[in-house]
Amino acid sequence: MTIREQLENKIDQKTKPPGSLGRLEEIALQIATIQQTLNPVINKPHIIVFAGDHGIAAGGKVNPYPQSVTAQMVYNFVNGGAAISVFCNQLGIDLLVVDAGVNHDFDASLPIIHSSVGKGTADYSQENAMSIQQVKECFEKGAAVVNDIFQKGSNCVGFGEMGIGNTSAAALIFHHYSRLPITDCVGRGTGADDDQLKQKQSILDEVSRLHDLTAAIHSAEALLTKVGGFEIAMMTGAYLKAKELGMVIIVDGFIATASLLVASHIDKTIIDNCVFAHCSDEAGHQHMLKYLNAKPLLHLGLRLGEGTGAALAMPLIQNAVAFLNEMASFDTAGIDGKTI
Amino acid sequence: MTIREQLENKIDQKTKPPGSLGRLEEIALQIATIQQTLNPVINKPHIIVFAGDHGIAAGGKVNPYPQSVTAQMVYNFVNGGAAISVFCNQLGIDLLVVDAGVNHDFDASLPIIHSSVGKGTADYSQENAMSIQQVKECFEKGAAVVNDIFQKGSNCVGFGEMGIGNTSAAALIFHHYSRLPITDCVGRGTGADDDQLKQKQSILDEVSRLHDLTAAIHSAEALLTKVGGFEIAMMTGAYLKAKELGMVIIVDGFIATASLLVASHIDKTIIDNCVFAHCSDEAGHQHMLKYLNAKPLLHLGLRLGEGTGAALAMPLIQNAVAFLNEMASFDTAGIDGKTI
Repeated sequence: MTIREQLENKIDQKTKPPGSLGRLEEIALQIATIQQTLNPVINKPHIIVFAGDHGIAAGGKVNPYPQSVTAQMVYNFVNGGAAISVFCNQLGIDLLVVDAGVNHDFDASLPIIHSSVGKGTADYSQENAMSIQQVKECFEKGAAVVNDIFQKGSNCVGFGEMGIGNTSAAALIFHHYSRLPITDCVGRGTGADDDQLKQKQSILDEVSRLHDLTAAIHSAEALLTKVGGFEIAMMTGAYLKAKELGMVIIVDGFIATASLLVASHIDKTIIDNCVFAHCSDEAGHQHMLKYLNAKPLLHLGLRLGEGTGAALAMPLIQNAVAFLNEMASFDTAGIDGKTI
Repeated sequence: MTIREQLENKIDQKTKPPGSLGRLEEIALQIATIQQTLNPVINKPHIIVFAGDHGIAAGGKVNPYPQSVTAQMVYNFVNGGAAISVFCNQLGIDLLVVDAGVNHDFDASLPIIHSSVGKGTADYSQENAMSIQQVKECFEKGAAVVNDIFQKGSNCVGFGEMGIGNTSAAALIFHHYSRLPITDCVGRGTGADDDQLKQKQSILDEVSRLHDLTAAIHSAEALLTKVGGFEIAMMTGAYLKAKELGMVIIVDGFIATASLLVASHIDKTIIDNCVFAHCSDEAGHQHMLKYLNAKPLLHLGLRLGEGTGAALAMPLIQNAVAFLNEMASFDTAGIDGKTI
């Protein structure tokens, strides 16, 4: 029997009608298959939040909140006041915050991972967002963060992000891969009203033309140079390392999924390791999940980012693993099976 | 300002775009409103599983598993081998198991709540399932269990059930209230195949005629005498007491929702205290939730009962309360608001 068949057999012997734990059975099967064992474990789950600023956001053209909020939220993460801080604290998840390239000087003593690649990207409505050297630096630094938690015993990680303006970068990435019109890819972000949304769409349409996003095929790295963000590129490197290390990857919302899209164009098998936490309310995420043929666990109307959806899905993942390991079988519990 | 307005204000001051925590914001608002406070708490959450047997199930006409499984599962709950045992253990939820009327002699030393009303109901395809005295006894015993955990400091409870054949009773209850045809109310339960499902529907159609379920209007108590189960009726009493005590009530799947339907016909304000945990895969539950205008938190394809959906929703509820209490406000965190 293959390990998959052995797992299906083990699940069907549990004291419950076959299939009655629904999505949890699929998750248990997936995680056990990733770990190639009948007794999977989730060890030291982490959420890693990458923060970075975007040149295009400096002028407030695509975002209702000022760029300064990115840095202010980094302090909020560290001080425990952000949603992701509260959820990780509540759920026993380790939270790491990475300065991937915020437009701010953080004191070296601040308990974050200081991996800044620059003080925000260049404005991609005028020029490339970053150089190919910066993309490579992002990949290396993202991989290093993941490698570090893996070495300390973690085998499960979700990625979050903070970056005023980064729904625009995510929309452009999805637009390039899906070839869907900008209007299907762009949402309200932190809360654009109707006029702001139209302006955002119109600006991103111009950006698409400037960087030839619909006719040409760009490599993952080239696409990041054009419209990427430091936090998005660093997350891409983190995804690829997590896959290489055989970790369980929890995929958060719109921006985290855009970064995964880039990673999947470098290693398409990465999807095997991904549990899709939720479908965000950010317009475009639903299209993105469909494009990836992904079935999200939660539908809670979240649109906050920070890895909040990934954190909230963690108990479901832990319970999926727990039922596989701890539930009795019909045999051991002495329970009658079907009569017919 | 009303407490609702104060709460909306408090939620909108949190360091996140307005509305971006989606359903969690609604849950936080609901729980704080139940508790009439800006700082709600979830204390000692419990799942109480009521177990009972059904006369109609003795012959195996509506259920693929033998009636003996009800008692065997009670032992499995106690021994920690059932899905609900594993989930409660994983999530730090107290689990209580109640013998509401299982067709079995449990030793008095077994750590369950011994509240049996009889050795299973009578076969409602032939006669009434129980007497009005038994309904009253169920209500009292259900209320007593809830009162007991409340006195010990619990303010949040979800109800589960175990009873071979009880999807049939739940379907008949919903059929009576909704007047939907039996085919819309009846599902596969623990796993009826196509032929078994047809037989189940045909038998329940006869039961509906015998007890005049579509033309007449029966009181909640009378309906339970006709087609109820001891575990369903005891849960009804438990719901009513939990509402009276101002507790947060987590509503599980198909059978638990049917019991709530009965309770809501005695006290329709009970819905104010209910968080609907999930939409079950049992056909009919979706109709039931729609009938109640209820928005379930989870869609995981569960169809196991035992309170498993209620348990899995608990972390979302706890996180909703946590963000309301623990997240920083824009003011206290020094974060800039919208510029436009």
